[in-house]
Amino acid sequence: MQLSETPRTTLTRLADRGRTEVDDLYAVLDAGLVGHLGLVRDGAPVVLPMGYGRRGDGLYLHGSSGAGWARVLDGAAVCFTVTHVDGVVYARSVFDHSLNYRCAVVLGTTRRVADADEKRDALEAVTEQLSPGSWSYARLPTKRELAATSVYALDLTEASVKIRTGPPHDEPEDVVAGGRWAGVLPVRTVFDAAEPAPDLDPGPVLPTHVSDRRPG
Amino acid sequence: MQLSETPRTTLTRLADRGRTEVDDLYAVLDAGLVGHLGLVRDGAPVVLPMGYGRRGDGLYLHGSSGAGWARVLDGAAVCFTVTHVDGVVYARSVFDHSLNYRCAVVLGTTRRVADADEKRDALEAVTEQLSPGSWSYARLPTKRELAATSVYALDLTEASVKIRTGPPHDEPEDVVAGGRWAGVLPVRTVFDAAEPAPDLDPGPVLPTHVSDRRPG
Repeated sequence: MQLSETPRTTLTRLADRGRTEVDDLYAVLDAGLVGHLGLVRDGAPVVLPMGYGRRGDGLYLHGSSGAGWARVLDGAAVCFTVTHVDGVVYARSVFDHSLNYRCAVVLGTTRRVADADEKRDALEAVTEQLSPGSWSYARLPTKRELAATSVYALDLTEASVKIRTGPPHDEPEDVVAGGRWAGVLPVRTVFDAAEPAPDLDPGPVLPTHVSDRRPG
Repeated sequence: MQLSETPRTTLTRLADRGRTEVDDLYAVLDAGLVGHLGLVRDGAPVVLPMGYGRRGDGLYLHGSSGAGWARVLDGAAVCFTVTHVDGVVYARSVFDHSLNYRCAVVLGTTRRVADADEKRDALEAVTEQLSPGSWSYARLPTKRELAATSVYALDLTEASVKIRTGPPHDEPEDVVAGGRWAGVLPVRTVFDAAEPAPDLDPGPVLPTHVSDRRPG
């Protein structure tokens, strides 16, 4: 399935890096731990990192009902961007240095999720994005905890995906001149060994959804 | 030195995670590869990932002079946010799951850098942030390349820093109940072995500023 192009998602620059498959959008989103939410407050943009979850063609965001940004988010125009850095691209010239990355930009209007079933489903999506396996392992939210959490939905109908991979693209004369190394230094996110909480009782063993977790 | 608090940088939520030392701000910014720039276009926010560099109490951003966002950036209200994810915090309860992170949020108005010396210095800062050592190793920009690049400055006078570290903070009753593992899964960014460009001539060896590079 193809992403529908709108004037706002038409790439103005390096359009050859654009991807138009919905599956590419889903893959970039599904591999992330945090995205960056942009909203407008008093006429100025604010960008905040945030956990999220996807269900089909919708994203869910959540936060404390007391958070400043949550109070302005119902029906707000937002942008939600998820970026993965995959490599530093060293070219022969400074000008052609670049970054390998995958980036999804979602534009839309947030909707406050009031329905209890949808809210529960959204929180499961957000929890499973941050920590796959936790929804069936950890204690589920109480009514009071649910009330303290605000959830917002954002459709994925207006989005763009940009991906850069591969080696540097140097000017031909710099390649011919030679003498300088060029290539890619891959960047990767890893999980280190899990650190038990200091107040952990001796009973529970490290669950496999934590110990076996692999990035992305 | 302390960050000056303004109404916009006063944390509305989990203020105990706030840091007020300028050095904390610099440390978060200096450890990053990309930040997320928020700007307002036609009344709606747009958030784009972007390289940057710091010089003292100022940030520099750069981009192609032809980029859509660059055309609206002179004198624009912006927000520039740099986030590092340091760990997934697994609590006994879903509600207390969290993320360890370091985040700097800079608010301000961008200024187009026209002065040739400042522009060169800014591009050196941006290059050295992305790829330390490249400015003195790679071919420097030509006049034409300089003209094709737009550079914007953003003061660090209005900024906030938020950092979460350490174990989960579970509800006392969940700790007493026991039976569930809790702790932190550390998240780290690593560089893998450098990959030479396919068109690399046999002459140049892998320089140490690439081979010995360590994250952050």
